[in-house]
Amino acid sequence: MSQSTGVSARAAAPRRARVQGTVRIVGAGLLGASIGHALSALGIDVALDDTSPSQLRLAVDYGAGRRAADTDEPALIVVAVPPDVTADVIERELARHPSAVVTDVASVKLEPLRALRARGADLTRYIGSHPLAGRERGGAIAARADIFVGRPWVVCRDEETSPADLALVEALALDLGATPVEMSPEDHDRAVALVSHVPQLIASLLAGRFLGAPDASLGLAGQGVRDTTRIAASAPELWVQILGANAEPVVDVLDALAADLGAVADALREPDASGSRRTVADTIRRGNEGVERLPGKHGQNRRFETVVVMVDDTPGQLGRLFGELGELDVNVEDLRLEHSPGAQFGLAEISVVPSAVTRAVEGLEERGWKIASTTND
Amino acid sequence: MSQSTGVSARAAAPRRARVQGTVRIVGAGLLGASIGHALSALGIDVALDDTSPSQLRLAVDYGAGRRAADTDEPALIVVAVPPDVTADVIERELARHPSAVVTDVASVKLEPLRALRARGADLTRYIGSHPLAGRERGGAIAARADIFVGRPWVVCRDEETSPADLALVEALALDLGATPVEMSPEDHDRAVALVSHVPQLIASLLAGRFLGAPDASLGLAGQGVRDTTRIAASAPELWVQILGANAEPVVDVLDALAADLGAVADALREPDASGSRRTVADTIRRGNEGVERLPGKHGQNRRFETVVVMVDDTPGQLGRLFGELGELDVNVEDLRLEHSPGAQFGLAEISVVPSAVTRAVEGLEERGWKIASTTND
Repeated sequence: MSQSTGVSARAAAPRRARVQGTVRIVGAGLLGASIGHALSALGIDVALDDTSPSQLRLAVDYGAGRRAADTDEPALIVVAVPPDVTADVIERELARHPSAVVTDVASVKLEPLRALRARGADLTRYIGSHPLAGRERGGAIAARADIFVGRPWVVCRDEETSPADLALVEALALDLGATPVEMSPEDHDRAVALVSHVPQLIASLLAGRFLGAPDASLGLAGQGVRDTTRIAASAPELWVQILGANAEPVVDVLDALAADLGAVADALREPDASGSRRTVADTIRRGNEGVERLPGKHGQNRRFETVVVMVDDTPGQLGRLFGELGELDVNVEDLRLEHSPGAQFGLAEISVVPSAVTRAVEGLEERGWKIASTTND
Repeated sequence: MSQSTGVSARAAAPRRARVQGTVRIVGAGLLGASIGHALSALGIDVALDDTSPSQLRLAVDYGAGRRAADTDEPALIVVAVPPDVTADVIERELARHPSAVVTDVASVKLEPLRALRARGADLTRYIGSHPLAGRERGGAIAARADIFVGRPWVVCRDEETSPADLALVEALALDLGATPVEMSPEDHDRAVALVSHVPQLIASLLAGRFLGAPDASLGLAGQGVRDTTRIAASAPELWVQILGANAEPVVDVLDALAADLGAVADALREPDASGSRRTVADTIRRGNEGVERLPGKHGQNRRFETVVVMVDDTPGQLGRLFGELGELDVNVEDLRLEHSPGAQFGLAEISVVPSAVTRAVEGLEERGWKIASTTND
């Protein structure tokens, strides 16, 4: 999935927008304003609307688009409002703009669709979508044109979807640098329950256990637990809405987790019971295999090998390193620079295609670099 | 906490060691070899021992110390072997070196102490300790002198501990740049159950749920779930030992978590039951408060600012970027290269000292680089 694709020279050149006409964005928060910034940068006319005058002013002042006017005739409307009002706003926009295609970016897709069906809304012009993008901070002020780049953008087609409308929403995703992914609302909601909603709850539940703990205990916390609980810092209001709107799939995963958790707790309670040791080992081993299935960074990309090079981080050293990798015609697919206080050197972890490892290692060593290790992860 | 400062000239300058005499290290894995590197750098005579000849050779070749000799008369012995053999090795070392102070670095403190008491070992010269440090990769080859810097190092004193011996073990921690923290073995084990052992299990259990999921679902995974499950990549063997050795405190936390998890699942099952909404909101809110109690800013370093530069990843591009940063006399404190499928470019997130931001941004823009953003996180 998340393979580091070679990035082409086209990148720098201004791209031509796929979306044509005015795009109306309802809700100028993080997602709405970020979409506005990206589309405006492509020269698209962006009309912003928001129930909060201050939020709207911020978004306009920061360049996400112009204020919407009653005379606007948008080709596409993006509804980027909180989940609990998404269906209302979609229904209203469909009625107000009888020729526009309406999409939304809510993180749950089945409930708004059900609500709209129940109200007998004309769904031929509605296509639910969900860009898997965000930041820890919300609001127009945190908006960034690049938050969608390289991220999946789920587009929910159903029997009522016209190919032209689908193409328009996918064009929006592509204009923002995202990768359109077609899914049914049901599959989408099950997927985000597993990879987003339950991880949020688990991080929150774990962090919640810190409340009763003495400071001295928490003083022993390291990067591991900080990563595990990082998203526990998310805003309650939004999450209560999201979890409520996707309760069924979330509960299914929670129940399965509760059973696994109970089993490993029992195994630790009865270390001598037959299979106890095995249960604990399997829990960790299944976790190893599961995390390997995640795309991207920590799901470490199996397509590349890592060459770890020692560098002292005086200015120019990295320049020399990557310059020489360039001379060796070694393309750096991904990299991490690691160093800590007191370290005598930094470690540059460079991901390269397997076929380039030998060339990189030998070439760098000839040029006097110390290779700390070469791994397969 | 673990902050990534630039490797300063000061770091290179030799510090005076607090520990005097020969330090014998039994177990030349990640922790043992890292301690060896740090002490050797301080000019201390380090005698390494390991049951694995190849591990020992690696550690010696990489400069962690010299091979131990039968004639060694160590002042301090550091036992850095797997948990399941820690007590045996401590007992043996106490007997073999009747004048040495013996400490260990095992991540569980009560069980080895109980085992040694049960065997009637002379505990007046033993002081259990636990440096809260590590890396994802293990073994002598992953060893680094700086992994203890700024980390807590728990030292377990009990009625049998002599002040002089305690001072020696704390001197070791201080020589390695760690912060000694005195705790009872019981308090230590409860603390690591909460901030280390249970988070490991929870990350493993969550990642284990990915095994049955379709690729398309996992394709929607973002940074949040990757962080939440990152430590699920840890090695099973070691964790089965650690969890087994600290079962009681771990089970206590697991049971409390299971109850919380059951409550929030029921609340989502019965959204209209009185207090359901409240239960979900409280779960997220308690998580907010809990995560705030963790030391360190979720690993983020407040001392640096981030400049995000767009790069196409053709060979030499990063070389050009870092070469020009060198020309601008901008030192890269840390960096991350981000790019994903379909991306039109990669994003190089470069951490620099605040005073260098303007110089970096202006200088790079003059040279034709596109700055995606400049943030404070």
